[in-house]
Amino acid sequence: MRTVSVVGIGSGNPEHLTVQAINELKAADVVFMLDKGEERESLTGLRTQICERYVSGACRIVTASDARRDRDPTHRTGQYAAAVEDWRARRAEIYARLLTDELAEDGRGVFLAWGDPALYDSTLHVLGEVRARGTVGFDLHVIPGISSVQALAARHQISLTRTGRPLHITTGRRLAAEGFPAHSDDVVVMLDARAAFRVADANDEIYWGAYVGTPDEILISGRVADVADRIAAEREAARQRHGWIMDTYLLRRPGDTADGAR
Amino acid sequence: MRTVSVVGIGSGNPEHLTVQAINELKAADVVFMLDKGEERESLTGLRTQICERYVSGACRIVTASDARRDRDPTHRTGQYAAAVEDWRARRAEIYARLLTDELAEDGRGVFLAWGDPALYDSTLHVLGEVRARGTVGFDLHVIPGISSVQALAARHQISLTRTGRPLHITTGRRLAAEGFPAHSDDVVVMLDARAAFRVADANDEIYWGAYVGTPDEILISGRVADVADRIAAEREAARQRHGWIMDTYLLRRPGDTADGAR
Repeated sequence: MRTVSVVGIGSGNPEHLTVQAINELKAADVVFMLDKGEERESLTGLRTQICERYVSGACRIVTASDARRDRDPTHRTGQYAAAVEDWRARRAEIYARLLTDELAEDGRGVFLAWGDPALYDSTLHVLGEVRARGTVGFDLHVIPGISSVQALAARHQISLTRTGRPLHITTGRRLAAEGFPAHSDDVVVMLDARAAFRVADANDEIYWGAYVGTPDEILISGRVADVADRIAAEREAARQRHGWIMDTYLLRRPGDTADGAR
Repeated sequence: MRTVSVVGIGSGNPEHLTVQAINELKAADVVFMLDKGEERESLTGLRTQICERYVSGACRIVTASDARRDRDPTHRTGQYAAAVEDWRARRAEIYARLLTDELAEDGRGVFLAWGDPALYDSTLHVLGEVRARGTVGFDLHVIPGISSVQALAARHQISLTRTGRPLHITTGRRLAAEGFPAHSDDVVVMLDARAAFRVADANDEIYWGAYVGTPDEILISGRVADVADRIAAEREAARQRHGWIMDTYLLRRPGDTADGAR
């Protein structure tokens, strides 16, 4: 039986790898790297660096071109999800081919997942589709990793949660469409390509970060009224400088931390 | 200047420590362990085991009695939060004393945090209070860790999020009081002492785990209608067997993953 591991590698700091993740890499016969096209060289380089640092040269890396994704920004939410589903089906074909062609029947293969495989990552979903097709069987291991949200909180030295209160995690697309959620005063926003933080009130606090954990890290925090323009400008400048951007943020509605009114 | 690090150590599997966390432990002059009274020997043992495994005997551990906490289960939410605030103030005194008495002025001290310091952990808040008092200054480092939620998802081999959809993280207390949130179909519940998952619909799915990542791990998943009684029974039996329980779960309302109707 083949063994396939999905290994969370964190969001940019190679020292965020866990002992469990390193052991899984060391035990692997093959590490699969899917080149998404949208990923820039710096990200590919980071993955290679992680393999070389922790597996000391014995790491066999197989790179494949991932399915290209329809990223039309005018999609409404439903269309967006349908485009993602189609993209995943094409990925399932690619993943299945990698497993049959590049992995011996008793081999161990690793897929690297940015951040944590459980948070806005599709690797597990794609492997579920591969399994459902029935053409190649495998044992599955899932290794959690430090997500960009956690790295963000650590660098800002804040807790994401307040005593006994909820935390909402959502996407920039939803925040832009739905506004600040009525049911939570602490909102983490991921995958925001449109500076959706402008929906927040002037007095809300924002803790923003880009390329968190890497040498290119940028951190900005403060009242939305005070820092929104600066974040938007830094974000655009960084995107042009690097050719891509990876950022996330916490929006926090101020208020008594002992609040139990909701 | 003293350096104080808050290091996330995961929720039970010593291999969930990151390279960054291990390096921080190795650089420490003192590792502080706060005995909460409510914590059982197995947890204290796990922390000691982590120090010995990764710091190979050179680890100076200072144990102190933490402030006792008012855990009256009849508290309403507001009273609960007030009790936590009072508890934190008393903890701030204890932490300040540890820093001044046990750490040289250029020393490096580490506080271990279960899971991730950013998720329902009060260490950062308490150290903020220590700093605000102004009696002892320090540089602060925060090292993220694998939370019990991530360990849970990894062991169930699931993603916590669905494509483009939000994730809500809340407490058992709130879930019991407010019911299943209307605004999110994926809800992580922490700190649930009352089997609040019974508020879910019969068709909702639950992914439950206790002592996740430890040799005592228990995992149960299925339709709430099918497994709620079994979870309640296993939970109670385990609590009696171990003297304490640490569990968490995801509630998932079924539905088209391409849903964009909300």
